[in-house]
Amino acid sequence: MKIELSPIGYVKNNRFSMEDDFWGEVLSEIVLAENISTNALEGIENFSHLEVIFYMDKVEDSKAVAQCRHPRNDLKLPKVGTFAQRNKNRPNKLGLTTAVLLARNHRTLLVKNLDAINGTPVLDIKPVMKEFQVQGEIKQPLWTQTVMKNYWESKK
Amino acid sequence: MKIELSPIGYVKNNRFSMEDDFWGEVLSEIVLAENISTNALEGIENFSHLEVIFYMDKVEDSKAVAQCRHPRNDLKLPKVGTFAQRNKNRPNKLGLTTAVLLARNHRTLLVKNLDAINGTPVLDIKPVMKEFQVQGEIKQPLWTQTVMKNYWESKK
Repeated sequence: MKIELSPIGYVKNNRFSMEDDFWGEVLSEIVLAENISTNALEGIENFSHLEVIFYMDKVEDSKAVAQCRHPRNDLKLPKVGTFAQRNKNRPNKLGLTTAVLLARNHRTLLVKNLDAINGTPVLDIKPVMKEFQVQGEIKQPLWTQTVMKNYWESKK
Repeated sequence: MKIELSPIGYVKNNRFSMEDDFWGEVLSEIVLAENISTNALEGIENFSHLEVIFYMDKVEDSKAVAQCRHPRNDLKLPKVGTFAQRNKNRPNKLGLTTAVLLARNHRTLLVKNLDAINGTPVLDIKPVMKEFQVQGEIKQPLWTQTVMKNYWESKK
């Protein structure tokens, strides 16, 4: 089964290469693709947060595979499967982040906390609702602390 | 730009038609696709929650468009754009839900709170980490209360 998708928009920001950390201060614009009608954003300004699904097109096909590896190739961390980590080398190359919506201007959304590089195709945008948030406690293994240490930090 | 994706798994449950509400008690299995290696799930059992991106293949192509409409066609609710609501009729037919991981059994995940019907292709699974959760207050418009009223309720 093959599934064909098209971008509904593109990311514009000042991150031009794939790097893991320091996404804290990055501001991004999401600009609607030409074939998407402007009114698809109607009312989006009444939400504070958006879930953005994007396509990490710069990931090499040969690396977009399901496997089991040390996160960030750090041998001190346990080997875990692709679906037990969020690294970019994964089948379908899908990225997913909850971004903060700062402003809407016609066909452009200004967001922060979006960890996608400049030019990344966006596949969907969904408004965050409390009813879809995690209820109860989140459990996650200790190794995630190492990986996330500088992720949302600001670049010095 | 066309993007071609393949399912990494499929949903198995007892919901056979597209209905909006009463997802509260639904248990689902996600079974890996044949071409995906089992070790891609290694260590996933150490997470409590998973973000599941799925492809709502039963949505008609003619309805998978960006537009502006009353949520659930309820004329009492304000018209809002496709990207300001989470309804299934959207470009790329992507669904996204945070599910509770109950158990892993070899190539199968048992989850609850997954609002996808039986047979739905799964495109990606990402573990939930606190560091990717919303920081600060979530703001959302009043109409969402109407839409979400019975969403996670149990079927009587």
